[in-house]
Amino acid sequence: MMSDISKSPLYQIARPESIAIFGASNNFSSMGTSVLNAILTDGYEGRIFPVHPKEKRVLNIGAYSRAGDLPEVPDLAIIVLPTKIVAETLRACGEKGIRRAIIVTAGFSEVGGEGPARQEEIKAIARKYNIRFTGPNCIGVVNSQMKFNATFLSSTCRPGFIGMASQSGSFITQMFDYLEARFGQGFSTGFSLGNEADIDMADCIRYLGACPDTRAIALYIESIRRGREFIEAAREVSLTKPIVAFYVGGSETGKRACLSHTGALAGPDRLYDGVFKQSGIIRARSVEEMFDFCYALGSCPLPKGKRALIQTHSGGPGAAADACGRSGIELPALSSATLEKLRAYVPHTASVKNPVDLTFTKNPLDYFKAIPEILLEDEGADSLLVYFLATEAMVNRALESLGVPEAEIDAQVKTIIEDQCTSVAALMASHGKPMLGFSFLNRQNPFIAGLQDNGVPVLASPERAARALGALVECSRLREKLARSKRPASV
Amino acid sequence: MMSDISKSPLYQIARPESIAIFGASNNFSSMGTSVLNAILTDGYEGRIFPVHPKEKRVLNIGAYSRAGDLPEVPDLAIIVLPTKIVAETLRACGEKGIRRAIIVTAGFSEVGGEGPARQEEIKAIARKYNIRFTGPNCIGVVNSQMKFNATFLSSTCRPGFIGMASQSGSFITQMFDYLEARFGQGFSTGFSLGNEADIDMADCIRYLGACPDTRAIALYIESIRRGREFIEAAREVSLTKPIVAFYVGGSETGKRACLSHTGALAGPDRLYDGVFKQSGIIRARSVEEMFDFCYALGSCPLPKGKRALIQTHSGGPGAAADACGRSGIELPALSSATLEKLRAYVPHTASVKNPVDLTFTKNPLDYFKAIPEILLEDEGADSLLVYFLATEAMVNRALESLGVPEAEIDAQVKTIIEDQCTSVAALMASHGKPMLGFSFLNRQNPFIAGLQDNGVPVLASPERAARALGALVECSRLREKLARSKRPASV
Repeated sequence: MMSDISKSPLYQIARPESIAIFGASNNFSSMGTSVLNAILTDGYEGRIFPVHPKEKRVLNIGAYSRAGDLPEVPDLAIIVLPTKIVAETLRACGEKGIRRAIIVTAGFSEVGGEGPARQEEIKAIARKYNIRFTGPNCIGVVNSQMKFNATFLSSTCRPGFIGMASQSGSFITQMFDYLEARFGQGFSTGFSLGNEADIDMADCIRYLGACPDTRAIALYIESIRRGREFIEAAREVSLTKPIVAFYVGGSETGKRACLSHTGALAGPDRLYDGVFKQSGIIRARSVEEMFDFCYALGSCPLPKGKRALIQTHSGGPGAAADACGRSGIELPALSSATLEKLRAYVPHTASVKNPVDLTFTKNPLDYFKAIPEILLEDEGADSLLVYFLATEAMVNRALESLGVPEAEIDAQVKTIIEDQCTSVAALMASHGKPMLGFSFLNRQNPFIAGLQDNGVPVLASPERAARALGALVECSRLREKLARSKRPASV
Repeated sequence: MMSDISKSPLYQIARPESIAIFGASNNFSSMGTSVLNAILTDGYEGRIFPVHPKEKRVLNIGAYSRAGDLPEVPDLAIIVLPTKIVAETLRACGEKGIRRAIIVTAGFSEVGGEGPARQEEIKAIARKYNIRFTGPNCIGVVNSQMKFNATFLSSTCRPGFIGMASQSGSFITQMFDYLEARFGQGFSTGFSLGNEADIDMADCIRYLGACPDTRAIALYIESIRRGREFIEAAREVSLTKPIVAFYVGGSETGKRACLSHTGALAGPDRLYDGVFKQSGIIRARSVEEMFDFCYALGSCPLPKGKRALIQTHSGGPGAAADACGRSGIELPALSSATLEKLRAYVPHTASVKNPVDLTFTKNPLDYFKAIPEILLEDEGADSLLVYFLATEAMVNRALESLGVPEAEIDAQVKTIIEDQCTSVAALMASHGKPMLGFSFLNRQNPFIAGLQDNGVPVLASPERAARALGALVECSRLREKLARSKRPASV
C-alpha cells in the first residue's frame, strides 16, 4: 500500500496548488475555454495561469504568452491545444520546470497515420523532463472534495466518496448529474485516462487506494495495458478498500468498439473475469451496477455472512426475496426472540416471516426505528434490507389526524423526517451490520434524500439493492481469500 | 380479441360513471378515507356516494347510511371495511343491484383460520347476485386517462399508455412516482388483483388488450391461477399488443415469500419461462426492465430485424456496443452511402464505424437531426440507438458565442430545445424504424423531458436501452411465430 499519497505521480494532478492552462481563450466554443470555465465555475481555490499567444486576459484572468513567462512554476499544466503544437508546448513546460501535465488533446495513438509517432514523441519529451502526465485524448480530472474540476463540463456535485478511473473519454463528466441525482454526491476524485501513454489504471488504483476521501473505487475498463502492475496494485488496495470494475470490451461487438475508441485491444471476457477475481475486484455488469456497488460498499460495514432479513411495506416482498435468491443471499427465518419482540408493533395482517411484510404498521414511524432495530438485533442475520415508501403526504395526513394545527404542520413534517432519517442512520452505526435501503422513489422525495444524506444507502429497486448486498458479501469473501494467500500475484 | 371493451367485467371497474364507497369516514388515518381522498384529489368526474352508518357527510360529500338508501344504482362499489362485515355489505350491494365491486379488505384466503371460508362466502354471494369483483386483499384500480384513482395514494401522474395488472398488493401505487419521474406518465389503467377470488390476470389481459389508451401491457406475476385462460388471453392479445411479464416467484426464496403474501403457490421458474414463450409474452427480469420494455414497446414501431446502429457522443460507445452484443443485437458496418453522407457533419477525430462516435460535432445541433436522419436511412440497419448528452448550459454557451444578447438567451434556449426534440420525434415517425435514446440524465434535464414528451423513448443507460431494443426484436419474433401457428393453445 502506498503509505504517502503525495508520492503518487497523480498527487499534483488531482490536488494542484497552481495550474497553467494552454488552449483556453475568450472563444466560448473552444474546448480549452470550456475547461477553464469549469475550473472557475466549480470554485477552484488555487492559482490559475492561462497561457495564450495573443490574449492579455482570458475569461478575465491575466494571461501569459508562453510557458517561459509564467511568474512561478505551477504544479500542473493542462494542455487543450491543436495536436500539432502539443509536443512543443510540453517541451516548453519541461523547460520551465513543470513536472505534471494533463494532455486533453486527441489525435495520437488512437488514430492512424502519424498518431502513434506523435505519441512516441510526447513520451520522449516527458521522459527527458521527468514529466508525468495523463492522456493524451482524455478529459482531465475532477476532485469534488477540493472543488477542482478540470473537465470541460462544470459540475454542481457535492463532495463524494467514490473514486473513479475511466478509460472512456468523457465518461466521468457524463456521470456528474447522474451521481448527484441518484446519490447526492460527486466523485471524491475522478480521472479520465485516455490513451494512457504514461500514467495508467494501475497508478490510479494506488492513488485512490491512498486517498483519504475515497471509500470505494470504480474502474471503467476498456482494456488493461500493464497486466502485472494492474493486478499487483489491485491486490494491495482491495485488502482495505473495495474496487469495482465495469469492463466493456467483453462481447465481440464491444471489443470492436473499444478498438476504434482509444486504440487499445480488449481481451476475452473470461480472461478479464479471472484477472478481476485474483485481484480482489468485484465485477459490475453495467454502469448503474458499478455505482450502486461503490455507493453501498462506501456506506456500509461489510457483512459477516450472506444471511439477510428484509423489511417491506407490502408491495413486492416477493421481488426483493427473489432478487436475493438470484444474488446468492440467504433469507433465514426470524429468531423466536425477534418474533416475540415484533409482536408489539405489527398488525395481524402482517407476515412475520422473512421478508417481514408489514402492510400497515400501527404507528408508521415504528418503521424507521423500533422495527429495523429489532431486525438488526437478530443474531441469525448478517444484514438488513429495508424497503422505504414514505411520503410527505403520509406524514402530513398523520399529523392532521392527530389534530396538529395546519400552520405548524410543515415545520413538524420537516422535523419528523429529519428525526426518522437520523435514527435509521444511528441504527446502522450502532449495530455494525450493513443496512441497505431500496425505494422506487428518488431524491426528490425528502425521506430518500434525508436517509442518503445521513449515510444510509438507498438504492433504486429491490433487485439493485439485492445485487449490491451480493457485492458486499463478495467483497468480504474476496478480501478474506486475498488475506489468506501470501503468494505473489501472477498474470 | 375482445371486440367491445364494454363487455369486459372490468369495464365498470376501470371506467365507472358512479361509485359507492364503503369504509371512508372523516378519520384521516383509516384506509377507506385514504381511498376516497385519492379519488377526490385526482379529480374523478363521476358521481360519488360514501356509505357510512353514522356520518352525514364524509370528506364534505353527502353520505348514505346503507347501500339500500343510495339514490341510484352506482356502477361500482369499493369496499374498505373490517373483514367481518364485508360479506353482509356485498350482499346489501347485490340487493341494491350493484354488479361490480373492488374488495380492498384483507383477511381472506391469504391468512389461515377462517380466511378461506370467508373467501368462499363472498364468492357465493357474488355468484348469487351476479357481481364481478377484484380482490379481496387488493389496492383497487387507477385510470390516469379518466383521472380515476381508487387506490389509497393520490397520484400526480399525467395520462400514460402502459396498462398494468399486478398480483402484488400496493405495487401499482408504489410505481406512481417512479413512472412519472422516469417517463413523465402514469398507467393508462392499473389493476391490483389481490387474491383473485373472481376477476384475475386473464381478465385483465383481455381488458387491457381492448383498451384504446393502452399500448403495452405489464404483468407483475406471483403465480398464475388459471393457466389455460391466461395463455389463451395472452396469445390473442400479444398478436397486436405487447405483453411484458415480471415473475417474482422464480427462486426458492421468492417462492416462499409469495406463498405468505397472497396465499398462491408459485411454480418453478422454467415452467413460467415456457408459459410466457408460448403465450407471446416478453419476460422482464426486474421491475425496471418491465417498465423500460413497456415504455419502449409502446413508443416505437417494431424493428424488421436485429441490426442496429448506435450514435454516441464520446464516452462509452463501448458500453453501448457491449450491451447490444449481450442482448443479441447485431451492429453492422455503415453502408458506403451513409459514410459518404456523414462526411459533411463529423470532425476528423470521430469514428465513423458503428457505434458512430461523434466526439464533438461541428454544429452540436446536427446531432439531433442531420446525423440521426442519415443513420435511419441506412438500409443495412433496422433500428437506431442514440446517446443523448445535451444540457441547457451547452446551448447557452453556443448562443453566447454567436453573440446573442443575454436578455434573449433564455427564450431562445427554450425554443431550440423544443425544435430539436420535435425534429427527433419526426424522424422516428417518418422512417418507421425504432429509435431508442439513452442518457444518464433524467427528466430534470429539459432535453430528456422534451424528447420523451414528444414520443421519443429515452432510457436510463446504454445497457437498459440495449435490453429494451432486445425486447422489441423479441416482440417481433414472438408475434411472427404466433401468427404462423394456428394450433390451439395447450397448457
